Amino acid sequence: MTEDRFLHQLFPRLGAMPAEVVVGPGDDCAAVRARPGRLLLLAVDQVVGDRHYRLAGPDADPPALAGRKLLARNLSDIAAMGGVPLHALVAATLGPGQDEAWLNAFFDGMLELARATGVTLIGGDLARAPHDTVASLTITGEVADAEIKLRSGARPGDIFLATGGFGNSFPTRHHLTFTPRLREGRLLARHPGVHAMMDVSDGLFLDASRICRASNVTLRLDPARIPLRTPQTTIAQALGDGEDYELILAADPVTAAALEQTWPFPDVPLTRLGEFRAPDAAGPQVTGPRGEPLQPGHAGFDHFQE
Amino acid sequence: MTEDRFLHQLFPRLGAMPAEVVVGPGDDCAAVRARPGRLLLLAVDQVVGDRHYRLAGPDADPPALAGRKLLARNLSDIAAMGGVPLHALVAATLGPGQDEAWLNAFFDGMLELARATGVTLIGGDLARAPHDTVASLTITGEVADAEIKLRSGARPGDIFLATGGFGNSFPTRHHLTFTPRLREGRLLARHPGVHAMMDVSDGLFLDASRICRASNVTLRLDPARIPLRTPQTTIAQALGDGEDYELILAADPVTAAALEQTWPFPDVPLTRLGEFRAPDAAGPQVTGPRGEPLQPGHAGFDHFQE
Repeated sequence: MTEDRFLHQLFPRLGAMPAEVVVGPGDDCAAVRARPGRLLLLAVDQVVGDRHYRLAGPDADPPALAGRKLLARNLSDIAAMGGVPLHALVAATLGPGQDEAWLNAFFDGMLELARATGVTLIGGDLARAPHDTVASLTITGEVADAEIKLRSGARPGDIFLATGGFGNSFPTRHHLTFTPRLREGRLLARHPGVHAMMDVSDGLFLDASRICRASNVTLRLDPARIPLRTPQTTIAQALGDGEDYELILAADPVTAAALEQTWPFPDVPLTRLGEFRAPDAAGPQVTGPRGEPLQPGHAGFDHFQE
Repeated sequence: MTEDRFLHQLFPRLGAMPAEVVVGPGDDCAAVRARPGRLLLLAVDQVVGDRHYRLAGPDADPPALAGRKLLARNLSDIAAMGGVPLHALVAATLGPGQDEAWLNAFFDGMLELARATGVTLIGGDLARAPHDTVASLTITGEVADAEIKLRSGARPGDIFLATGGFGNSFPTRHHLTFTPRLREGRLLARHPGVHAMMDVSDGLFLDASRICRASNVTLRLDPARIPLRTPQTTIAQALGDGEDYELILAADPVTAAALEQTWPFPDVPLTRLGEFRAPDAAGPQVTGPRGEPLQPGHAGFDHFQE
């Protein structure tokens, strides 16, 4: 099973969302009515030893980077909604090989990034597992009603843009050291002409397809325009590798041009990669620049599928 | 390492809590200023396969009961603060033996209890682990400022009361089927004379000791008064087994007497088990009824300690 397929049949079983739940499951964060004009954002993400980082062996990643990654993944979800992060709760389950020193280093890496991004750890739970080490983090954040960005707002005629570069996240260790695009997300959130936004964790092709399905649009994507993380990165890797933690967005043409001209972050480029159209009979999808089928080298990195 | 010892050295590294965080780490829930007069409660708890329930083998517990337990543990934390539960986010990591049918049953058990308690699942994440199955749930809730109950409010002269019965939770399967004490928690929260409250997950002796340390009081506990879950349950089991998910509380004598006389839940008794005093030179602790050392049969069930 894939995560998308499982969730597709799970969501109807959740029942109707109560009125205060403005955004329910299926976007980067849920959003709940907080005080007038403001929404409380909530998301949860996890890191699993020897899946999201190397836990054991001579090539083991430093536990500080694993803890850092756990928070950074969640910050990327807040950034994707245009929000400001606030608070975090952590549940950690240690395998038999992880001791107090390991756990302290794990928290050190997390807390250093928390301080840098204004996040406060307000709760948690610790447990032991027979073999594996699994940690989840729930983050809260805040965003103005008028500034929240969803996956579902892209419109035919919108331009498709992306921050940063793509591909080769694991070999370059980008997946452990990336900077969540909070600064960029806040800037983009202030533009009413940015109609949809999400972060890329499962691969550019797969996550762009999710915007298409949520918005009922088709994306004509030009793979030749994708900024590659390294000179050795292939387009197939850029489309499929995942763990990029960049923002992708849909903006009307005027807003897109204004963003390109005024973009203030030279270290994190904003690149125009394609445009959205009304879907044809094939339904919402990602195609090549002339509407031809796009064959990604990978189908995307589903963190759940076996 | 024990969870208490680890957290004791972790908390100072978290930095000062911002003003909106009214209750930080160390109680059953964190509490964050929401709208005027109301606090947002947040807590996270987990269930680990073959630790908190039997995942594999001929005696495997039904996955629906594992999912139910995950939510019920969190509801117990909301109950302990006197709150009303609202929303939940779930992170689940499956081992190689858990398939779509298993995961659906896990969610079925969780969602049935969610419907019964007014909780809406608003987000989540799914992943795979090399061996183990671990799930965490973050719950939110709400409580009036004037009604929140902490561990730290017990005073010398207060009476120590408990709901329900204790001991033998695992063999009786109480740990999978218990009813979180939300109803009782809300009733108790409305009494200003209830000064402290928490839920018992790690054993009556260990959790009562936590109230004593948080409140700087000593508890004279009469083990002979503890309601035993079954006729076969020993006092040592009642003091140390854990996973009771009952509420324990400190109330002034007038409130305690009023509660005993008007308690409306015949299926969940409220029992007076002792009284709090100012600590002597030995510091805050749980003693026997005449101040003698209390030797629990178990030191308590720390879900983290190996």
